Amino acid sequence: MTTPAEPLNLAGWTCPLPLRSYPTIVMGHGSGGKMMSDLIQHLFVPLIANDLLAQVGDSTLFDMNGSRLAISTDSFVVNPLFFPGGSIGELAVYGTVNDVAMSGATPLYLSAGFILEEGLPLDDLGRIVSAFGAAAQAANVQVIAGDTKVVNRGHGDGVFINTTGIGIVPAGVNIAADRARPGDAVLVSGTMGDHGIAIMSVREGLGFEAEIVSDTAPLHGLVAALLGVTQDIHVLRDATRGGLAAVLNELAAASGVGITFEEQRVPVKPAVHAACEMLGMDPLYVANEGKLVAILPAEHAEAALAALRAHPLGRDAAIIGQVVESHPGMVLARTGIGATRVVDLPAGELLPRIC
Amino acid sequence: MTTPAEPLNLAGWTCPLPLRSYPTIVMGHGSGGKMMSDLIQHLFVPLIANDLLAQVGDSTLFDMNGSRLAISTDSFVVNPLFFPGGSIGELAVYGTVNDVAMSGATPLYLSAGFILEEGLPLDDLGRIVSAFGAAAQAANVQVIAGDTKVVNRGHGDGVFINTTGIGIVPAGVNIAADRARPGDAVLVSGTMGDHGIAIMSVREGLGFEAEIVSDTAPLHGLVAALLGVTQDIHVLRDATRGGLAAVLNELAAASGVGITFEEQRVPVKPAVHAACEMLGMDPLYVANEGKLVAILPAEHAEAALAALRAHPLGRDAAIIGQVVESHPGMVLARTGIGATRVVDLPAGELLPRIC
Repeated sequence: MTTPAEPLNLAGWTCPLPLRSYPTIVMGHGSGGKMMSDLIQHLFVPLIANDLLAQVGDSTLFDMNGSRLAISTDSFVVNPLFFPGGSIGELAVYGTVNDVAMSGATPLYLSAGFILEEGLPLDDLGRIVSAFGAAAQAANVQVIAGDTKVVNRGHGDGVFINTTGIGIVPAGVNIAADRARPGDAVLVSGTMGDHGIAIMSVREGLGFEAEIVSDTAPLHGLVAALLGVTQDIHVLRDATRGGLAAVLNELAAASGVGITFEEQRVPVKPAVHAACEMLGMDPLYVANEGKLVAILPAEHAEAALAALRAHPLGRDAAIIGQVVESHPGMVLARTGIGATRVVDLPAGELLPRIC
Repeated sequence: MTTPAEPLNLAGWTCPLPLRSYPTIVMGHGSGGKMMSDLIQHLFVPLIANDLLAQVGDSTLFDMNGSRLAISTDSFVVNPLFFPGGSIGELAVYGTVNDVAMSGATPLYLSAGFILEEGLPLDDLGRIVSAFGAAAQAANVQVIAGDTKVVNRGHGDGVFINTTGIGIVPAGVNIAADRARPGDAVLVSGTMGDHGIAIMSVREGLGFEAEIVSDTAPLHGLVAALLGVTQDIHVLRDATRGGLAAVLNELAAASGVGITFEEQRVPVKPAVHAACEMLGMDPLYVANEGKLVAILPAEHAEAALAALRAHPLGRDAAIIGQVVESHPGMVLARTGIGATRVVDLPAGELLPRIC
C-alpha cells in the first residue's frame, strides 16, 4: 500500500504529553477537555495552522470581499439520536448557529453533511431531517449545501451530521475570547447542565427523563438582546462540551485574566442538581446546548441581565461573577460556605458523545 | 422517550418508489445514482428546501453583502483510509475544493470536521492530517474552522472527514448545470475511472495497485486555464460518484438537452480498462477525483482542449461529444462498432465508500 506521507514523528512534538501516553485515539480526545485541547494543539494545528485558525473561539472571523463574516463547523455524533427535548436534528442546527452567533454575527447560511449507517430506519431519518428543517426555520438560516453518504452497518452509528454555519458580523461589534478585562461582569443566560443530564437520563435509563429535558435552542435572539443594550460586549461563549467550567477556563487563558464566581449564583435546576449528586457529577462540567456565557463591562451588567431575562430563553439568567487581574488563567469559585476552590479544565471524558 | 417530530408519513410522498421498497437505509442510497437522488428529492428536499438549495450543481451560488460566493460541503467516508496515490486527507480537501471550482469560483476557505473512531492509531491520524494540510496548501485554501469528535470503537470507521469550501465567483462567469445548449462541445480533462479502480484494487486485494493510482488532485488550475480561453464556459462538473455516466445524465436532465458522445474518444488508461473488464465494470460509471467535464460553445472547443492539454493535470484531455436538441434528458454513446447505446444513470451501488 502506498503511504502518502511520512509516518508522524511523535518525538518531534513540542509537548508530547499526554498524547504520547496514548498511541491511539481514546474517548477522552473528544470530550472538550485537556486531552482534546492537546490533540488539537499538537497534532492538528502544526499541520493545518494559519493566522485565521489561530483565533480561539466558537467561530472564526474572516474577511470576504470587504464583509466581516463568521464561520463555524461542528460534527454531531450524539447518542442516542432522540432524547428528551430534541434530537440530533435540531442539535446539529442550533449547535452551529449558536457558535456563529457567539461572535455577535447574524447566522445566515448552513451546510449539512449527513453520514448514514446502513440499516437506519427511513422513518427515523425522516424525523431527524424534519427536526433539522424546523430548527433551521426557527433559527432563520437557509440550508445552502448538502451531502449524504452511507457507510456499512457497524461502521457508523445511525446518523452523524456535520453542519457549517456562516453569518455576518455587524459593524462595530468586536466579540472575542481574548477580550475579557479585569472588572468585567460574567453572566450566564440560564440553568446549567440540562442537556448533559437529559442525554445521560436516556442513555443510562435513569428514569428522571420526564423532569429534565435538553435545552437545545437557538441563541441568536439572546445575542441580539445583549447587543441592544450595548455593542461593547467583550466575550460570548456557548457553554457546550465541558460545560461552564471548560468555557471559563478557556476564556481566562485566552484573555490572560482570572475569573471568580459565586457557585451559589450559578442557576441549576433542582432536578439537574439531584441527578448530578446521584451520578457524582458537577453541573459546572455538564454540557448545555442553549445557554451562553457573556462577559461585558460591569456598568452594563444590570441592563444586560434585564435584557436576557426579558427573553423567553433567558428567564433564569444571572450575574455569577467577575473578571479579575489576579491569578491569570485560573478560575476560582466561592462556595456556599465561603471557601474558595479552583475550577479546573476537565481532563478528559466526562460524558462522551453529548453533541 | 420524547419524539421531536411526527413519524414520517411515507404515503404522502409524491413519488414513493423506490424509497418505499426500502424501510431502512441501504448502501445504494449513498452511491450517487437513482436511489440517492430519490432519497434526496423525496426526503431531504421537502423538509429543508429553499430556492438556493434547489440549484443543481457541485456547489451552490449565493450572495453575501454583494459578493457572489460558491459553497460546497462533502463528507468523506472512503475505505480504506490510505490507497495508491493518496489518502482520505487529500481527498477531503480536493473533493470539496473541486466542487467549489466547478462554478468557476476561486476556492479560498475550508472548514474541517473530523469524526475519529476510538482506537485509531495516532500515527495514522497524523499522516492523514499531514496530507490534509499539504493538500490545502496545494489548493491554495486556508482552513478556517475545525472540529473533532470521537466515537466509540465499532461506531465509526477510523476517520470520517467533512469539509465545506467557500470561494468567490469572478464577475461575468456564469457556469451552471442547466446551461448546456444544443451545439455545445463536451470535453473531459483526462482519463476516466482511475480513482475508483485504485480504491477497488486495495479493497479487493487485486494486485494491480502498482499500475493504477488515484487521480486525486485540485482542479482549480484547469478551471483557470479554461476561463483564460473564454469566460463563456456553460457547464463544469467534477466526475466523482457515479462517474462520467452520472454526470452527463444529471447535466442532460438539468439542461433539458440530449448528450451524445463517442465512447472511443473517452480516455481510459489501458490498466483501468483491463481491470474494469476483469471486474465486469464500465469505466464510464467509475469515480474520478481529479477530472472535470466541461461543456462550452463549439467554437471554443479546440482552444479549450489545447489549454487543458497544456496543464499537467489535463494532458489526456479530449473532446468526447456534443449537446443535442433531440432526446432531451438522455445520454447516448456511439460505440466502436458504430452502434448507439443509452448510457443510463446508475441505479444504486456500484462501488460504495469511494470518497
